[in-house]
Amino acid sequence: MKVNVNKDGNLIVISGPSGVGKDTVCSKLLENNKDIFVSISATTRNKRKGEKEGVDYYFKTQEEFKDLISKNELLEYALVHEKYYYGTLKKPIMDKLKEGRDVLLIIDIQGALQIKKQFEQAIFIFILPPSLKELMKRLINRKTESKDEILNRFKSTYKEINAIYNYNYVVVNDEVLNCVKKIEAILLASKCRVDRIMDLELNTKEDEIHEMLIDL
Amino acid sequence: MKVNVNKDGNLIVISGPSGVGKDTVCSKLLENNKDIFVSISATTRNKRKGEKEGVDYYFKTQEEFKDLISKNELLEYALVHEKYYYGTLKKPIMDKLKEGRDVLLIIDIQGALQIKKQFEQAIFIFILPPSLKELMKRLINRKTESKDEILNRFKSTYKEINAIYNYNYVVVNDEVLNCVKKIEAILLASKCRVDRIMDLELNTKEDEIHEMLIDL
Repeated sequence: MKVNVNKDGNLIVISGPSGVGKDTVCSKLLENNKDIFVSISATTRNKRKGEKEGVDYYFKTQEEFKDLISKNELLEYALVHEKYYYGTLKKPIMDKLKEGRDVLLIIDIQGALQIKKQFEQAIFIFILPPSLKELMKRLINRKTESKDEILNRFKSTYKEINAIYNYNYVVVNDEVLNCVKKIEAILLASKCRVDRIMDLELNTKEDEIHEMLIDL
Repeated sequence: MKVNVNKDGNLIVISGPSGVGKDTVCSKLLENNKDIFVSISATTRNKRKGEKEGVDYYFKTQEEFKDLISKNELLEYALVHEKYYYGTLKKPIMDKLKEGRDVLLIIDIQGALQIKKQFEQAIFIFILPPSLKELMKRLINRKTESKDEILNRFKSTYKEINAIYNYNYVVVNDEVLNCVKKIEAILLASKCRVDRIMDLELNTKEDEIHEMLIDL
């Protein structure tokens, strides 16, 4: 008997409201799981000093980007501030998954919903704050945004939160290590799902067992 | 905002061919997770010396058992050797689940398939041996069964193995601790499933945020 299991990696899509601690959680996750590949975005914005092609971004011209769109070579994309395109190339992700590596994509809800249409078998995880008030406190304490910006974030979070029903899993970020442990459990459990079994080769013949019993 | 999550425990149904090491795996699982409750079977066979009602079994008369069947108070049952009934009472399990405790049920494939019809939300885990040959070796080394019995087990395992597609997860018992770790991951992941969210109370009012910003 041989169980042929799909050895492809999992595409892990993580979203959550601004300030929920996605980056802290994900960097801890990556620290514990060195083999997870982090997806790199494609963009049409200009390369900044020190940025490297294929490391920070895949830099594309508007023409190239529109070509990628028309050829359906993106898992998702958006035009930001009506100026620059940002998106996720399909090929590098599919290549890594085929190599058996898990791929992590930290992305907003709109992007995640686009991905779900093309790649439903991805694992969609939404990170929630312990409370919305707690989230606002974190944003306020960060002191990187104006009052208006914070208020806008509150409104959009409030609106977006119902999108969680499109995700597979919800993890409350009460404590970073706890949150990472849950994500790791989700990844390990996914590898045990019965739909990853591609084939059961029941190639042990009764004769072989007879032989084993004779040897007894 | 308040996320109301279903706090009910999970019903964990574990099956696997004879000799795969279910008991060793489950006792290690229970050692690590003291709050898991192990389901107790009901039976019509006679109480043996030292056995206690509600600890080893719930002992029932034939009449009582048939009454349980007709009232649909069993999750599954079987008549063994055309003589004694064995089955799983619904009520004690539902009570424990409501208390938030996970309940473990180690059961054969026929029993698991019956449970699935009545309680589809249970977590069905099938434990596989690394290979069928390996399984036969284990059975032979146990020296508790005759050659004919072993050969019959091989034939029935061979036949039953395709039932795994009715399960949610498949765990290969290559190494006990590894196997337990995977089952624990499955349980933790299940607690994060989005379908456990019953209600999202977005009860933080914009006014409250305004107040927080004034305090800034």
